[in-house]
Amino acid sequence: MTDLTFTPIPDIPIVRPGDDLGALIATAAGAAGLALQNDDVLVVTQKVVSKAENRFVCLRDVTPSRRALDLAGTTGKDPRLLEVILWDTAEVVRVRRDLIIVEHRLGFVCANAGVDHSNVGPEDDLVLRLPADPDESARRLRARLCELTGAAPAVIVNDSHGRPWREGTEGVAIGLAGLVPVQDLRGHPDLFGYRLRHTTVGFADQIAAAASLVMGQTDEGWPVVLVRGLVYEPGENVSARQILRPRERDLFR
Amino acid sequence: MTDLTFTPIPDIPIVRPGDDLGALIATAAGAAGLALQNDDVLVVTQKVVSKAENRFVCLRDVTPSRRALDLAGTTGKDPRLLEVILWDTAEVVRVRRDLIIVEHRLGFVCANAGVDHSNVGPEDDLVLRLPADPDESARRLRARLCELTGAAPAVIVNDSHGRPWREGTEGVAIGLAGLVPVQDLRGHPDLFGYRLRHTTVGFADQIAAAASLVMGQTDEGWPVVLVRGLVYEPGENVSARQILRPRERDLFR
Repeated sequence: MTDLTFTPIPDIPIVRPGDDLGALIATAAGAAGLALQNDDVLVVTQKVVSKAENRFVCLRDVTPSRRALDLAGTTGKDPRLLEVILWDTAEVVRVRRDLIIVEHRLGFVCANAGVDHSNVGPEDDLVLRLPADPDESARRLRARLCELTGAAPAVIVNDSHGRPWREGTEGVAIGLAGLVPVQDLRGHPDLFGYRLRHTTVGFADQIAAAASLVMGQTDEGWPVVLVRGLVYEPGENVSARQILRPRERDLFR
Repeated sequence: MTDLTFTPIPDIPIVRPGDDLGALIATAAGAAGLALQNDDVLVVTQKVVSKAENRFVCLRDVTPSRRALDLAGTTGKDPRLLEVILWDTAEVVRVRRDLIIVEHRLGFVCANAGVDHSNVGPEDDLVLRLPADPDESARRLRARLCELTGAAPAVIVNDSHGRPWREGTEGVAIGLAGLVPVQDLRGHPDLFGYRLRHTTVGFADQIAAAASLVMGQTDEGWPVVLVRGLVYEPGENVSARQILRPRERDLFR
């Protein structure tokens, strides 16, 4: 076992709509003397992906629906923000004062449908939605990096989610390419030859969480982290949806 | 920002009841040329802590209670194992065929109250309970390492827990010493000067998850991971209980 290393790629500029994120990363990695390799994993915060894909919404252009106005009454949040949240919502899961937790139409459960009001820009009326298809974003970024550098590292798009039972957000994978996200240890013999039963590991989420330690919560300047020394199962037909527990097997909804 | 590095400490022998875990770690780290430092974090899997503390139970010595027999009917599990699980249970949260999820008397929610039937030994009747007080285990280990090496790294005792909504277990901190486990970013200005609101980060859990990537699920030979390059808030009056969400603020119980 070698060391597992998380290296922030330095000097990535502030990302703007239309930017070629792959080129920004390849250039910054090259300037830092970090030659990407096929067995690397690159973790990219959703925020820079969303910015490059221009997922900004100006709240001044949003007319809240009846439902958004109702939710504004309960939560105390801006009804226009709630309208944007509802665009990306499959189902509202919990609503309280100052809080709305939804099942995102991408399938995961999170606060505010991932719509972000901080670190977005000097415009107070600007919010940022998640990438429309984070798996596709990861695949495109991976292909672009391969085009520019010859190497195709696995790519994880991460975000910070709250969770039941425990305090504090944790990095999770919301999109990915090139790596199998859940490791299945069922049937592998353990140290004494017994069979491990029912053990699957949230592998991609653990990588996403680790990268969040490096990014810091405000991701000021460290939106991309290079992970080196990880043995992972490569995969092409993969999706962050594979991490989602099917509703019928979820006891906590 | 420097690299964040996770290094497994090699050649830790199989831990047996009564072993001096601090001495085993200090010796193995020294032999590997890894000089512990005050700003390191050491992540130790609960299994070796439990083994050193002789938290083994032989199921042949256990007489199941009425409640354990009832739960055996529902789950299909060994009633003696359920009796041991009940010893460490504050409240049964969910019961299904092949599944029991409880609030452990230490406060966290997990399957089987953390009682482990795999990787325990050649005796099929042997199970392993969690350390009686994982915070105290972490504090003792930290003090012992300081005694032996002069350095007092922060210590996290981790375990792998399942979670709602998402597939796969993830490493979490169940005991700790020397580091503040939840980072509070509330009120820190973000990149554009806004105030981040309600943002706390599950810092210790993210470290525990990252270390689990290195340990592997079966922890064969990598039960201790040295984390270097992490900026953390040191703390003395700390506990993994600080990670637990108070029940009245938990919407998913």
